[in-house]
Amino acid sequence: MTTGGVIAVHIGAGYHSPTKEGDYKRLCKVACAKGIDMLQSSASSLVTLVSVMKILEDDPLTNAGSGSNLTLHGTVECDASIMDGKGRMFGAVGALQGIKNPIEAANCLLGEQLKGKLSMGRVPPCFLVSNGARQFARDHGIKEALPGTMTTENALKSYKKYKRQLSECSVNHEAPSAKKRQEESCLLMDTVGAICLDTNGNISSAVSSGGIVLKHPGRVGHAAMFGCGCWSENVKDDKVGIACSTTGCGEQIMRTNLAQKCCQNVQAKDNPIEAVQETFTQDFKSSQLLCNDSEKLGGALLVSYDQNNAELVWAHTTESMCFGYMSTRDKSPKVKMSRLPSGSKCGESLCLGGCLFKLS
Amino acid sequence: MTTGGVIAVHIGAGYHSPTKEGDYKRLCKVACAKGIDMLQSSASSLVTLVSVMKILEDDPLTNAGSGSNLTLHGTVECDASIMDGKGRMFGAVGALQGIKNPIEAANCLLGEQLKGKLSMGRVPPCFLVSNGARQFARDHGIKEALPGTMTTENALKSYKKYKRQLSECSVNHEAPSAKKRQEESCLLMDTVGAICLDTNGNISSAVSSGGIVLKHPGRVGHAAMFGCGCWSENVKDDKVGIACSTTGCGEQIMRTNLAQKCCQNVQAKDNPIEAVQETFTQDFKSSQLLCNDSEKLGGALLVSYDQNNAELVWAHTTESMCFGYMSTRDKSPKVKMSRLPSGSKCGESLCLGGCLFKLS
Repeated sequence: MTTGGVIAVHIGAGYHSPTKEGDYKRLCKVACAKGIDMLQSSASSLVTLVSVMKILEDDPLTNAGSGSNLTLHGTVECDASIMDGKGRMFGAVGALQGIKNPIEAANCLLGEQLKGKLSMGRVPPCFLVSNGARQFARDHGIKEALPGTMTTENALKSYKKYKRQLSECSVNHEAPSAKKRQEESCLLMDTVGAICLDTNGNISSAVSSGGIVLKHPGRVGHAAMFGCGCWSENVKDDKVGIACSTTGCGEQIMRTNLAQKCCQNVQAKDNPIEAVQETFTQDFKSSQLLCNDSEKLGGALLVSYDQNNAELVWAHTTESMCFGYMSTRDKSPKVKMSRLPSGSKCGESLCLGGCLFKLS
Repeated sequence: MTTGGVIAVHIGAGYHSPTKEGDYKRLCKVACAKGIDMLQSSASSLVTLVSVMKILEDDPLTNAGSGSNLTLHGTVECDASIMDGKGRMFGAVGALQGIKNPIEAANCLLGEQLKGKLSMGRVPPCFLVSNGARQFARDHGIKEALPGTMTTENALKSYKKYKRQLSECSVNHEAPSAKKRQEESCLLMDTVGAICLDTNGNISSAVSSGGIVLKHPGRVGHAAMFGCGCWSENVKDDKVGIACSTTGCGEQIMRTNLAQKCCQNVQAKDNPIEAVQETFTQDFKSSQLLCNDSEKLGGALLVSYDQNNAELVWAHTTESMCFGYMSTRDKSPKVKMSRLPSGSKCGESLCLGGCLFKLS
């Protein structure tokens, strides 16, 4: 079966400065166009997905790969994961340093699992962290970052600013204003992600993140956790195919298994937008597991499909979410900076929408 | 409300040599007796749980803490997590080296989250790995291991044996016999865990593991993953209280979210044993996410309770599972080495059972 292909990318739910809006959108366009180019040359879902993700990671604008937020110690530590809808295999790296494209390491872990068990019946790992992950990447010929190249000038500037605020905080013992807190909490959480449906009906999804600015070294967020950062399942029997990539507060997304939950609910219902809305309302914003959190900060990009059509859904409770999408039938990518309407509250209100693609 | 308390411990589902059966059982007894002693002195669920877990970690018999399986590079890297049924908070460490009791680091992460947000609205981490986790533990006064003390003579002996087999494997390119494979796959996966219901009706659970022998450095398994290694929820409204600690093949338990799934199913049904049986049969052994795995190796220990009674359930698809339990009304701990009946197949057959406790 050969049908239309679809690519969708996001560069995080959080706060996107209006002054950089053009740059954000351009990046989404470039990534989508590259993906569609590859799909039109019959590239597979996974191969295309990794190429698209590398564009997002490599851009210094995003909090993933080079340009990532710095940890409390001023280092870059990345989380990334990828899931393949065909075999439902998963690969992830956490707190990874020194590798140019964390998504390549995650994808390599996925690929190694497809080869079956290791010698002596050992189960191949799906999740590696820190130095072990770096060693694995090196051993598999994945490109290392040249010293200093993962830290951009902007990331260092933000780091210094927040570090200064942090020491002022601890001197003054003053709580920041509610507004400032809200801006900060939205500012610090973004992630890149992508979903790719190839022309053979295989879907896959991925996510990559530098984590929260000033995070504790070794902190691993949702972008490395199975079921949380991404989820993919090809069409099978009477179930629609589906993939999701999430963004937002890692600890909250982890507790609510957000990517898998969105997909399960979409598969159980007729209307994907309603299903995502219900997931965010019931399983995220009202989750008992987040009852101590005043703000629930999450975003998701989701594609569901059957033989004839695909449907894209986006949703976020953060100030803004920037994403792009394109099908092999489109002439050019569409990009959107979705912002909460004025008067609505970051971490409480939900903004969502969707669009349809004809596949056959 | 003060009622009876319950402690339940396991030292893994895997393969337990009959020659060491007495030692395994003795360890479970000591751990249960210590837990009940503390509960009778009004210690809280979490405090008791951590003390009990430390006994299990400290014993060189178990694959957790000192005595853990060694990685491919001959190092000890531990995963551990803990969940509190009252606030449903969770703390976890992965690939942690040099800390005597990994469960203490996980518990400290849980405790820090209970204090609320960090300065500047930063969300406290629930999951730290590797050097960052070690630094966190040090900064919080958690005991470091003296150099060399995490590696026991037995662990080193096993490591050398498997390392030798590994190099023979790669020279001969010979696949081991089916029987040998089965023994190995069961041998290499065990974990310790515990569940504690205190006399105020608070439940908590934990898990700690050295991971698979000859694992890739940096590999993190289910024992550090939210929803996979342990789960706890106090009685609330019309739902029974529940906690679970799992053991087995980390990658499989991770994909099936086994601890959370067992608990969800028990809460949805009247009969805990039937619910656990259904979970293992439908959501683990028949899971689409494990369809490429010939053997499904898992085990779970679970306690559910209401105002009047508690019920313990154990289940495993591995050769054996060793566990113990005791309530504050019992005179002494009960221990059991559950083994698959002869003729049944490790990774396929399911062995399960349960018992009841009166609480009030």
